[in-house]
Amino acid sequence: MIIVMKVGSPEAEINRICEECQEKDLTPEKIVGRHKVVIGLVGDTASMDPLQLQEISPWIESVMRVEQPFKRASRAFRHGQPSEVVVNTPNGAVTFGENHPVVVVAGPCSVENEDMIVKTAKAVQASGAKFLRGGAYKPRTSPYSFQGHGESALGLLAAAREASGLGIITEVMDTADVEKVAEVADVLQVGARNMQNFPLLKKVGSQDKPVLLKRGMSGTIEEWLMAAEYILAAGNPNVILCERGIRTFDRRYTRNTLDLSVVPVLRSLTHLPIMIDPSHGTGKSEYVPAMAKGALAVGTDSLMIEVHPNPSKAWSDGAQSLNPAEFDELMGDLSLIGQPLGRWETTPVAVG
Amino acid sequence: MIIVMKVGSPEAEINRICEECQEKDLTPEKIVGRHKVVIGLVGDTASMDPLQLQEISPWIESVMRVEQPFKRASRAFRHGQPSEVVVNTPNGAVTFGENHPVVVVAGPCSVENEDMIVKTAKAVQASGAKFLRGGAYKPRTSPYSFQGHGESALGLLAAAREASGLGIITEVMDTADVEKVAEVADVLQVGARNMQNFPLLKKVGSQDKPVLLKRGMSGTIEEWLMAAEYILAAGNPNVILCERGIRTFDRRYTRNTLDLSVVPVLRSLTHLPIMIDPSHGTGKSEYVPAMAKGALAVGTDSLMIEVHPNPSKAWSDGAQSLNPAEFDELMGDLSLIGQPLGRWETTPVAVG
Amino acid sequence: MIIVMKVGSPEAEINRICEECQEKDLTPEKIVGRHKVVIGLVGDTASMDPLQLQEISPWIESVMRVEQPFKRASRAFRHGQPSEVVVNTPNGAVTFGENHPVVVVAGPCSVENEDMIVKTAKAVQASGAKFLRGGAYKPRTSPYSFQGHGESALGLLAAAREASGLGIITEVMDTADVEKVAEVADVLQVGARNMQNFPLLKKVGSQDKPVLLKRGMSGTIEEWLMAAEYILAAGNPNVILCERGIRTFDRRYTRNTLDLSVVPVLRSLTHLPIMIDPSHGTGKSEYVPAMAKGALAVGTDSLMIEVHPNPSKAWSDGAQSLNPAEFDELMGDLSLIGQPLGRWETTPVAVG
Amino acid sequence: MIIVMKVGSPEAEINRICEECQEKDLTPEKIVGRHKVVIGLVGDTASMDPLQLQEISPWIESVMRVEQPFKRASRAFRHGQPSEVVVNTPNGAVTFGENHPVVVVAGPCSVENEDMIVKTAKAVQASGAKFLRGGAYKPRTSPYSFQGHGESALGLLAAAREASGLGIITEVMDTADVEKVAEVADVLQVGARNMQNFPLLKKVGSQDKPVLLKRGMSGTIEEWLMAAEYILAAGNPNVILCERGIRTFDRRYTRNTLDLSVVPVLRSLTHLPIMIDPSHGTGKSEYVPAMAKGALAVGTDSLMIEVHPNPSKAWSDGAQSLNPAEFDELMGDLSLIGQPLGRWETTPVAVG
Repeated sequence: MIIVMKVGSPEAEINRICEECQEKDLTPEKIVGRHKVVIGLVGDTASMDPLQLQEISPWIESVMRVEQPFKRASRAFRHGQPSEVVVNTPNGAVTFGENHPVVVVAGPCSVENEDMIVKTAKAVQASGAKFLRGGAYKPRTSPYSFQGHGESALGLLAAAREASGLGIITEVMDTADVEKVAEVADVLQVGARNMQNFPLLKKVGSQDKPVLLKRGMSGTIEEWLMAAEYILAAGNPNVILCERGIRTFDRRYTRNTLDLSVVPVLRSLTHLPIMIDPSHGTGKSEYVPAMAKGALAVGTDSLMIEVHPNPSKAWSDGAQSLNPAEFDELMGDLSLIGQPLGRWETTPVAVG
Repeated sequence: MIIVMKVGSPEAEINRICEECQEKDLTPEKIVGRHKVVIGLVGDTASMDPLQLQEISPWIESVMRVEQPFKRASRAFRHGQPSEVVVNTPNGAVTFGENHPVVVVAGPCSVENEDMIVKTAKAVQASGAKFLRGGAYKPRTSPYSFQGHGESALGLLAAAREASGLGIITEVMDTADVEKVAEVADVLQVGARNMQNFPLLKKVGSQDKPVLLKRGMSGTIEEWLMAAEYILAAGNPNVILCERGIRTFDRRYTRNTLDLSVVPVLRSLTHLPIMIDPSHGTGKSEYVPAMAKGALAVGTDSLMIEVHPNPSKAWSDGAQSLNPAEFDELMGDLSLIGQPLGRWETTPVAVG
Repeated sequence: MIIVMKVGSPEAEINRICEECQEKDLTPEKIVGRHKVVIGLVGDTASMDPLQLQEISPWIESVMRVEQPFKRASRAFRHGQPSEVVVNTPNGAVTFGENHPVVVVAGPCSVENEDMIVKTAKAVQASGAKFLRGGAYKPRTSPYSFQGHGESALGLLAAAREASGLGIITEVMDTADVEKVAEVADVLQVGARNMQNFPLLKKVGSQDKPVLLKRGMSGTIEEWLMAAEYILAAGNPNVILCERGIRTFDRRYTRNTLDLSVVPVLRSLTHLPIMIDPSHGTGKSEYVPAMAKGALAVGTDSLMIEVHPNPSKAWSDGAQSLNPAEFDELMGDLSLIGQPLGRWETTPVAVG
Repeated sequence: MIIVMKVGSPEAEINRICEECQEKDLTPEKIVGRHKVVIGLVGDTASMDPLQLQEISPWIESVMRVEQPFKRASRAFRHGQPSEVVVNTPNGAVTFGENHPVVVVAGPCSVENEDMIVKTAKAVQASGAKFLRGGAYKPRTSPYSFQGHGESALGLLAAAREASGLGIITEVMDTADVEKVAEVADVLQVGARNMQNFPLLKKVGSQDKPVLLKRGMSGTIEEWLMAAEYILAAGNPNVILCERGIRTFDRRYTRNTLDLSVVPVLRSLTHLPIMIDPSHGTGKSEYVPAMAKGALAVGTDSLMIEVHPNPSKAWSDGAQSLNPAEFDELMGDLSLIGQPLGRWETTPVAVG
C-alpha cells in the first residue's frame, strides 16, 4: 500500500500517520519527492481498504494498492499453474482447464417440458457438447414473464441427463434452493445478476459441486475475482469463470458487449478456467457463430451456447438461440479453428 | 408493439406474421411505407418480450415496444397522483412523498457497537434526521472484510431506535433473513447489488414493512422500475426508490457517478417517492454536502447521508462519512435551499 | 511515479531498472515489501508516461503516477485561488468565477435568421442572461442535417449583440475558422466532440478570446483538464470548463447523463470557472429546470440554457429548448435558490 | 417514423399532428391501440430527427425511427454486396474486403527517425504485412508529450515506402494538413478522437485517397456509420472502418475494451471493409496476440498491429507494441487460423 501525501503536508502530520500505521503492524517507509511525500507500507496489506486508510488524515491525497486483493483466486496462489475443474458426467469425466480441449455446454434458456429438454440434450450431445444447460429458476426482468418451472424442472433435467449422458449446469438464485439444485446439477451456476450476492456465494462455496460464476453486467475483473474468492474462501476450489457480455453505452445492435479480452487478462491473473457465453454476450443468434469462433481463437477453455429445438417458440431468450442444425454446423466450424490450436477433442464425434 | 419488416420482405411472410399475431390475440395493422412495412399490434402487449416476438420470422428487422413494461409502478397507475409512504416511528409518523418535506436518513455504514450507534442516532436526530441507517448485514467486495455483526447488530439498532425515537432503515441481503430483519427495521433496504435479486424482491414484497430499493450500479431506469414492480406485484405498495450512483467510465475521483437526473425522469414515469444517497454516490465525504444540496434543489423527496462519530476509525465506508458536526452544518445549509422551495420542515428543529 | 515490481523479480533486474531511471535524471528509492518491491522515483515525473516507463522491464507489474499530469490547470498552480475570466460585453464586464454571481448564457442551438436571433437575444437579456449562445457552425451526426449557416450567421450574431448588449458565445470546429469566429465571438466554444481535437485546442490557445471548453462525451476529468492544459500552455489563460452530460449505459430517457458531481471535484482540482449545460445534459426541455436548479445548488459558476422562440419549429435541438416564457420562469426559480446561497445577482433584473 | 401518443391524447391533437406531418410531405397512418394511439409516417423520413418531430406536440410520448439514418454506408445501398477498397502499393495492388485475404498493417506508433522506420518497414514486410503504419502527427493527451515530427516525418514514411514496397497509412488531424499528408500516404487515417470531427471528414471525403476511419472511444455503431456517411457523401467511396477499443467501466487491466462483436454487426449493416486494431484495443502487448487471433476468427478483413524495433525505447505507445520477432511469430500463428477459414494469403510469404 502506498500513501500519497498532499503538497505541503506538515512533517508532524506525516510522522503521525507513520505512527498510526505502525500501530496497525505495518512498517512505513517515507520517500520525499520534489513536490510530494509518499509513504510505502510494508506488511500484510492485501485485505486493507485503501479508502479506509485515507481517512487517517485529511492531508492524504490518495492511497494506492500494490498487492492484489484476491489471494486464492490469484495465479500466484498455484505458483503459476492453471487449475483443472473435473466433473463426472454419465458419459465420463470432463475437465475444464487451460491444457484441455474446449468444453462445450449447450441447451435452452429454460426447461419447458420433458420432451424438449430430452430432445435438445440428445441433439447437442450428438454434435459434441459435454454439458446441458437449462434453467429451472429463471431471473427475468419482469415479474409478469415466465419465471421457470422451478423444482419440477429439476426432475426434467435429471431425465435429460440420463437420456443423453450429459452433465447438467443450471442456475441457482436463492440460498434456500442450493441444496435442492445441487442434488441434480453437476455444476451450479451463479448468474450475472448474482455475482455479488454474497450470501449465495458463501452458500455455494460451502457445498461440493463445482460453481460456474458469471460476470456481472458491470462487474470489474477485480470484483469478479473477489466474488470467486468468496467461493474459494468458503472451501470450494472448483470455480469456472464465465464472461457473458458487459453493459456499455451502445446497446442498439447487441444486448451486451462480449468482452473477449478477459481471456488473456484472466490468464495472467488467475488459475481458474474460463468460459465464454456468446449467446447472452450478443443476444442475437445471427452473431453467435462469429463470436464463438473468436472466443475459441482467443483461448477460452469452454463455451456456453444456447440451443433450442424451435427458437421462435421458446418461452425465453429465443432470439439468441441456435437451432440444433445451426449448432451442429457451428461445431464443425469450431473444429476447424480448434484443431490447429490444439484445443479441440480429436476423438471423432458425430458432427453432421 | 410495432414490428418493423426488413426491406424486400415477401408479402406472404408478412401475412403469415399477421396470422401468427392473431393467434396470440393481437390485432395486427399494416402500414406500407416507401421502403419498409411496419405492423402495429393492438392488444395486451405490455408483458410480451420484443426479442421473443422477433423470432417469428427472419424477415423481421426489429420489434419496438410502445407500452411501458411496468404497470403498478407507473404514474398512470395512480392517475398521475404521487404515492405516499407513511412510516410510524417512535417520534411519530413520517411521510415520504412529493408533497411533503424532504425526509433525511442518516447514520453509519455499519453498526459497530451499542455506544456508537446510540450516540450517532441521538446526534443525527438532534440535527433533524427522521431515520437512522446502519448495516447489520454488509455486502463487502472482499470475503476478508468486516461482514457486519449480523443478527446481534439488529438488537443494537432496536436500542438506538428506543434511545432516539428515530425509525430504522437497514439492509437485508438474503431471503432467509427477511423476517428477522423485519422485526426490527421500520424500512427494509434492498441494496444496489440486489436490485435484480428476484427471490429477495418477491420476499420483501410479501411482507408488510416498506422497502427502500436502491438502484443497481448499472441498472437502467426501466429495470429499476421493473424491480419495484416485483415488490408491488407481490402485494407491498410501499416502495421508495433510492439512487446511489451509477458506474461510468470515470471512476478516478468519485466512486460512482451520482445521477441526479433520475429525479425529474422518475417523476414523469412513476408515483413512487425518491431518495438520493450522495454518500455512496460520490464515495468521498468532501463531495457529499454539494451533492446533497443539488439533490434537494433537483427535487428529491428524501436524502440518505452517512454519518459516523469518528469517520477515520469507521470499520467500513469511513471515507464517505460525515462526522456529526459536519452533518449538522449540512442540515443548516440544506434548510436554506429547502425552505424557499417549500420542501423543508418548518417546525423548529435543533440545528446547531 | 511509483514502480511496482512483480513477485519474485530478480535483484539484478531491480538494480538495472534503478540505473535506467537514474539516466532519466530520476532518483529511485526502493521499498522492499513482504511480497513485492516498489521503487519510488523522485524528480520531474509529471510529464512522463507511466505506460512507457513500464516498458523498461517485463518484471514491472505496474507504474502508478503520484503527480497530477496537469500543471497550469491545477488549483496548486494558483496557490489555491480560483481564477476569474472577465469578458467585456456591450452591457459591461461580466466575470465568471467562484466568488461571483452565476452567469447565465442562453439562446438557440443554431442561428436560423436575423429576426429569431435578435428576438431571442432581447428576450433572454430581459430575463437576466448575460450571454447569447447560438451556433453558426453546427456539428451534426448526419451529413444530411442542417449544418449551420456558417460565416453568414456570424454577422447575425453581431447584430444580436448590438441589439441586446449581450456577449456572444459560439462554437468553432475547424482551425481554419478560428480567426473569423474570433472577430465576432466574445467567447469561443470548443464543443464536446472536439475536446481532444488538439490542433484546434492549440489554435484557440494562441488567440486572445476566452475559451469555453466542453467536456467530451466520454472524457475523463483528467483528460478534460489536460485539454484545458493545451489551451493554457499555448498562452491563453481564460478557459471555462463546461459539463454537458456524459455517455452512460442508460440513454432511454435522457440523451446524456449530466454529471453534476464534477462541480465539487473540479473545485478541488482546478482554479478554472465551471459551467453546466442542462439542455444538452438531458436532451429534453422538461428536465432542464430541475437540473438547472440542481447545478446552481451544487455550486456551478455559470449555466448554459437553450432557448428558442418556438422550439417545435427549431432547425436543431428543439426538443431540449425552453421557450422564452419558460426560461423567464426558470430564472425566477433560480433566484430563489441562488440568493440564499449568495450566488445570484442582487441588482434588480427584469424578471417577468 | 412512428409517433407514439401519450395515454389520453385528445383526438383533436392527434388530428392536428397528422395535418402537420402532411405539411412535411409525410403520409400519416393512425393505429388505435388499447391504451395508446400510434401514428406511422410514410415518406422520406430517413434524414428527419426523431427528437425534432417530438416537439410538434406535448402529447407525443416518443418518436421511433424505422429507417436507418445512413444510406450510402448501408449494406442495402450495394444490394447486399460488400465493397472492395483497392490500394496500389509499390509491391502491387492490395484489396481490403470480405472476399479477400486479411490485410495486415503494422508499424510503430510514431515515426521517430529514418533508421527505425525503414528497419521496421522491412521487418514487417518480411513477415507478411502489406502496409506500414506510423504517425507523423500524433494526438497526445498531454501538451507536454511528444507530438510527432509532423511534416518532416512524412518524408521518412516516403523513404520507408520506397525501401520496403509497403503502402503507407498515417493519421491526419487537421483540415489544413490533408493535402500534405495525402501526397505521401496511400491511406489517410482519421483517428478515434476525430471520428466526429465533421470538417475533417468532409475534407478527406473530397480527396482521392482511401480513408481509414477509426471508431471513437464512445462512438455508437450508428454514429460511426454516420461518420463514414460524411466521407461517402462528400464523394469518396473508399472507406475502411477500424475498431480500436471502446471506453467502458473497467479500465484497470486494459486501456480500452476491444469490441470484436462489431464484425458480425457491421457485416449485417454495411458493405464497408472492417479492420481491427488489438494494440490500441488492449493497450498491452502481452494481450495483442490473443486478440489478433480472435479478430481473425470473428471475420475481420484487416488487422492493424503496432510493431516497434525496441518497444521499451519507443517515444510513444511502447507498452502496446510487439517487437519484430514477436510480430513474426504472431503472423505464423495467424496463418494457422486464417488458412482453414480461407482468409489468409496462401502465396508463400517469408515467415520466420
